[in-house]
Amino acid sequence: MGKSQALQTNLDVDYVISYRFAQADKATTIAKFEKLIEGLSSVGLQTEVRNGEKHSLLVFVRVASDEHLFGEVYRSRVRDWIHGVRAAAPPKETREALEAEPLYEAERLRIIYQLITNPESEGGAGITPKEGEWGHVESIFALHDHAYNKDWIKKWSTSYVLKMEDLDDIRNRLGEKIAFYFAFTQSYFTFLVFPAVFGASAWFFLGHFSPVYGIVSTIWCTIFTEYWKHQEIDLGVRWGVRGVSRIETKRKDFKHEKSITDPITGEKVLIFPAAKRLQRQLWQIPFSLAAAVMLGALIATCFGIEVFISEVYNGPLKSILVFLPTVILTTIMPVLTSILTNFATQLTDYENYETHGAHETALTQKIFVMNFITSYLPIFLTAFIYVPFGNIIVPYLDVFSLTVKPFADDEKQMQAPEAGWTINPDRLRKQVIYFTVTAQLVNLGMELIVPYLKRRGFSKYKEFRSERAAKSGGAIPSPDINDPPEDAAFLKRVRQEAELDVYDVTGDLREMVLQFGYLSLFSVVWPLTAVSFIINDWIELRADAIKICIEMQRPTPWRADTIGPWLDSLSFLTWLGSLTTSALVYLFSNDGLGPDGHPSSIAGWALLLTVFFSEHAFFLLRWGIRVAISKLDSPGLQKERRERYLVRKQYFEENLSQLRKIPKMADVGAKVTRASLEEDARAASLQESTPETRFWGRQKGWRETVAVGKNLIEKAEVESPEWKKEL
Amino acid sequence: MGKSQALQTNLDVDYVISYRFAQADKATTIAKFEKLIEGLSSVGLQTEVRNGEKHSLLVFVRVASDEHLFGEVYRSRVRDWIHGVRAAAPPKETREALEAEPLYEAERLRIIYQLITNPESEGGAGITPKEGEWGHVESIFALHDHAYNKDWIKKWSTSYVLKMEDLDDIRNRLGEKIAFYFAFTQSYFTFLVFPAVFGASAWFFLGHFSPVYGIVSTIWCTIFTEYWKHQEIDLGVRWGVRGVSRIETKRKDFKHEKSITDPITGEKVLIFPAAKRLQRQLWQIPFSLAAAVMLGALIATCFGIEVFISEVYNGPLKSILVFLPTVILTTIMPVLTSILTNFATQLTDYENYETHGAHETALTQKIFVMNFITSYLPIFLTAFIYVPFGNIIVPYLDVFSLTVKPFADDEKQMQAPEAGWTINPDRLRKQVIYFTVTAQLVNLGMELIVPYLKRRGFSKYKEFRSERAAKSGGAIPSPDINDPPEDAAFLKRVRQEAELDVYDVTGDLREMVLQFGYLSLFSVVWPLTAVSFIINDWIELRADAIKICIEMQRPTPWRADTIGPWLDSLSFLTWLGSLTTSALVYLFSNDGLGPDGHPSSIAGWALLLTVFFSEHAFFLLRWGIRVAISKLDSPGLQKERRERYLVRKQYFEENLSQLRKIPKMADVGAKVTRASLEEDARAASLQESTPETRFWGRQKGWRETVAVGKNLIEKAEVESPEWKKEL
Repeated sequence: MGKSQALQTNLDVDYVISYRFAQADKATTIAKFEKLIEGLSSVGLQTEVRNGEKHSLLVFVRVASDEHLFGEVYRSRVRDWIHGVRAAAPPKETREALEAEPLYEAERLRIIYQLITNPESEGGAGITPKEGEWGHVESIFALHDHAYNKDWIKKWSTSYVLKMEDLDDIRNRLGEKIAFYFAFTQSYFTFLVFPAVFGASAWFFLGHFSPVYGIVSTIWCTIFTEYWKHQEIDLGVRWGVRGVSRIETKRKDFKHEKSITDPITGEKVLIFPAAKRLQRQLWQIPFSLAAAVMLGALIATCFGIEVFISEVYNGPLKSILVFLPTVILTTIMPVLTSILTNFATQLTDYENYETHGAHETALTQKIFVMNFITSYLPIFLTAFIYVPFGNIIVPYLDVFSLTVKPFADDEKQMQAPEAGWTINPDRLRKQVIYFTVTAQLVNLGMELIVPYLKRRGFSKYKEFRSERAAKSGGAIPSPDINDPPEDAAFLKRVRQEAELDVYDVTGDLREMVLQFGYLSLFSVVWPLTAVSFIINDWIELRADAIKICIEMQRPTPWRADTIGPWLDSLSFLTWLGSLTTSALVYLFSNDGLGPDGHPSSIAGWALLLTVFFSEHAFFLLRWGIRVAISKLDSPGLQKERRERYLVRKQYFEENLSQLRKIPKMADVGAKVTRASLEEDARAASLQESTPETRFWGRQKGWRETVAVGKNLIEKAEVESPEWKKEL
Repeated sequence: MGKSQALQTNLDVDYVISYRFAQADKATTIAKFEKLIEGLSSVGLQTEVRNGEKHSLLVFVRVASDEHLFGEVYRSRVRDWIHGVRAAAPPKETREALEAEPLYEAERLRIIYQLITNPESEGGAGITPKEGEWGHVESIFALHDHAYNKDWIKKWSTSYVLKMEDLDDIRNRLGEKIAFYFAFTQSYFTFLVFPAVFGASAWFFLGHFSPVYGIVSTIWCTIFTEYWKHQEIDLGVRWGVRGVSRIETKRKDFKHEKSITDPITGEKVLIFPAAKRLQRQLWQIPFSLAAAVMLGALIATCFGIEVFISEVYNGPLKSILVFLPTVILTTIMPVLTSILTNFATQLTDYENYETHGAHETALTQKIFVMNFITSYLPIFLTAFIYVPFGNIIVPYLDVFSLTVKPFADDEKQMQAPEAGWTINPDRLRKQVIYFTVTAQLVNLGMELIVPYLKRRGFSKYKEFRSERAAKSGGAIPSPDINDPPEDAAFLKRVRQEAELDVYDVTGDLREMVLQFGYLSLFSVVWPLTAVSFIINDWIELRADAIKICIEMQRPTPWRADTIGPWLDSLSFLTWLGSLTTSALVYLFSNDGLGPDGHPSSIAGWALLLTVFFSEHAFFLLRWGIRVAISKLDSPGLQKERRERYLVRKQYFEENLSQLRKIPKMADVGAKVTRASLEEDARAASLQESTPETRFWGRQKGWRETVAVGKNLIEKAEVESPEWKKEL
């Protein structure tokens, strides 16, 4: 089997489990391995084992028979129905059900993954990679569909716009969670067209800090955020996952404090007191403060040094020293961030959430705080500290003269000229351009090129090492020595895929949301921001596709009906944008060219009034947009309504058909004869006579009521009565 | 049957329909009457007709047999289940279902009412009072349960606090919608204890405009609003109505523009374009502005006159003229309000909503705007116009000298003394006291005493009129001349009840919400506000009970799971309170005694900063309170969880029991012998050999995979590999 052919087929393999045994004694390893294979087989999975790289085994897994799979699919669909994700219960005959609603690839892979990882009580094998007794199981991954991947990248890189079908395709292959990321980015990209065009015009005709641009930009951000919420629902219905986030999956790491058996339902409930969790969550406040102080101090220090060196310092080596803050930032920041991220993870673990969803949300929130500080604080410092208070603060930057002392020739070079120093009006714009162009490009490069270089370097290193080992005689046997020749190429490819990283869509989503932040918060400084982003995002979408295909293991297809906690971040940034944009416009638009550097002309009350007014105009606007968008109909909502209607109709028919039609009231009493009256009287005297029976016995049947009523009406006075006129 | 006995029994009557025929020709009237009775009988209702007051007939209605009712109950419960109000489908056997879940009185009455009024397509008789062809049907009402009413009023008037059981009782008798009003008022009453105690202490120790009181009060308002939302859910579950507001009842008056038959479901959909409605809704803006301008102008004028007369004018008749603005207000305001209300109703009709819920919400919003202006504008004018800008504005009040010109002796009496005039520091407090004590008392009196007097006066007038008519010989025959003696007392009572007004719970709710507004917006002016309210509300709760029992027809028991659009008003007032309270504290707390009347000392930026800070502190606080309250567990939520769990369990068992347990994988391959290998090879050569079958055929059964894996592990190097150490 040649290399190209090895890329064409996955040999029916559903999943590959990488089992690493390097560090344990062989007896345990073998026992665990046996347990693993037995567990897989007990849930109806067929296995094949092969040698892997670096003391690992590769266990190939596939579903033994269609019948096994059908059962699982049916079980999953019943669960969906009970949780309200599906409108109707799935038809009972499994094969028939599958024909009516064919399985798509992502669904199949998800169901098999859940079959492997779900706890035994839920019908799975309970094999959770890297957790508890399954520490040896390094990863469980599906194999890439290289033919599809090739087509995918080719198609995307040659088309300007992604169509709905392209997103459907991703959903079918990689699952809804990743499809939601691409849908979001694509939607954002499409929406960017307007601010790009408008921003370019504003840049030409209105200049920087144009109030008109500010207003339009805020409106645009609000519409985008609200429209995306609407679109999420639509996509959720389209992909049949609406309400999926309500299906809560329990965390295995959740530690309960007591377990109670519900006296009524008999359900065993694991309890961790909410008050205790709230107490633990309160640690978030000192954590956020500490993170803010640490990151803020670092950024502020570098900012101070930078201002000092570039604007005050006048000695030798200035052109080199100017990079000092960048060096400090790029060395300390990653360390600090990783320490804080680690801390955030531990704090979230400590908060001990019961479900994966709650855990992820809590973690995302903490990370967003950190990202917010590192991404936006520098610009905030420039706009709201450096410019208005620069004249007051800069003289105190003398403290940073320490950093340049070794290089300065005399003291004078380190002192601000008495009157000559003015605020650099271009600093803010330059900074915004740096963050919205340079930093985005660097980021893109890091994402695509660095992993490539890493992979290349690593494989070179491996070659070198095995050569050296071969020379020294202690050669590690290559894992492929026993491979049958016809599978060799395929196995080599699988071994490569096993070494790849696991793709996490959260990181990519974060990137987009943070990018949106620059637009909503600071684009009024430099209206071309959106132009830069639209170019960047066109590439980003393709780069992410390439990354998933080449740099990463094939991701497990999870379901989602939202971009999750990032939605809140989006709303938050939009709101904050209404504050910063108005403040920036007020602070800097006086001369229409840039900051004037004269804080004395800024009136506190006018600034506050501007911000106050802008914020409330934003609230009103957002409310209006929400109302308007909620009225929009969409294919998804129509589909949902139809499904609900059909289900309702069906249930009604099923349940009410047995209720016999209520018969009309007895048609007696058409004629009242003396005989019948006498008989009634006899009947009344025979049975026990109560006031009720006598009252209701006076008119028998509706015809008699009509007759009596007719009589009463006819007897009434003809003319309209007096009291009516008088009133 | 004596009078007391007539109050004891309702003679099994479920509903009474008052049919008025005064203004139409007799033939039509009789035809319509026949149609009415036939319609009632067609849905299984038994009828009796008697003479009513003033050219009307009273049609007594009861369900003919239990079987009829059971069918309707079952139908209603199935509908609830389909809409997600009930967790599980009701058991199919109707009598059994009723034994498991007995019918409560309000449910019974609601179902019968719907049987009468629902359109024929939904199984009802389609008789809608005062609408379309049923213009003659004046009202459909149930009879009061006087024994219960007596107990109710007695119990409430002798107990300090209402218990949950009392609310349950109301729900069982009068339905959830009214029960929600009482539950809200009771909850509000209980919550008032804290601000009453704290307010009294603040009044003693902190004085007016205390920042501490302001902060505590805002926190309290926020907690109350958020907690009520939580409680609504709890009550909804307790009363089995959670989600009931999702069941949308179509409006009969809805005018569709086109009707489409859905190609997929076959459902007939009536369409009114959303864009067109949005266009019509835009009229709300000029309407609100017009209402604001008209009401505002009236209030501002009266305010100006009042200030002028009481503080500038110094001529004769001052003590009488001071009442001039009150006279103007009390004469013009009701006229203006009723014109505007009428207009609001028409506008809402014009907006053409499809469902009752949407219609009611739209109307309530418009009315709230008007109420807001009439209730709070006077205080706003004093606090934010009169005090800060009084010195500038008051000299211009000369225009109002026209109003007193006829009474003034000379011009001087109508001119403000050049320098002597100062702002009346007590005006704001007096005004708040007026609105929170006097106006509340007046309101209570109007609600209880005026209808009583009206009723008395009307019956006196009737006596007088019939006496006069008897004298002049043209006596209208009394409706009771044909009554059988044993029913006479009962029928007299029914005739009285037919003349009573229809109770609308919205008015009472509005009153409470507006009262809450005074507390959240202005209580910092006079911290005893809550003390006044707590006394007022204790009486209000009882007065409303009496009103329902005596002044009104027995209300039709509707369901509800919320206080509806008033909830938004509550949130709005709480939010606005965070603005006004901080502004009032900043404006007036300088000397701790009252407004100092020196607007020059007010710094605009500081005021804005205070308000800005306060508002955002409020947002943060509200978010925190929401999070904290969402963690609270409650009996209702527990109940709901339990029900859901049981249903889930049941469905799973029902649906999955048929899926046979997946068998373990074939237990072959325990021993690999030469014979078996040869056989495999033969088998492989016989069937078509694909790479897949060969790949998956190497290890047969899980035991063989284990054996191969064991072998691979054992062959691997013992020591931890070099690369691990190096990395």
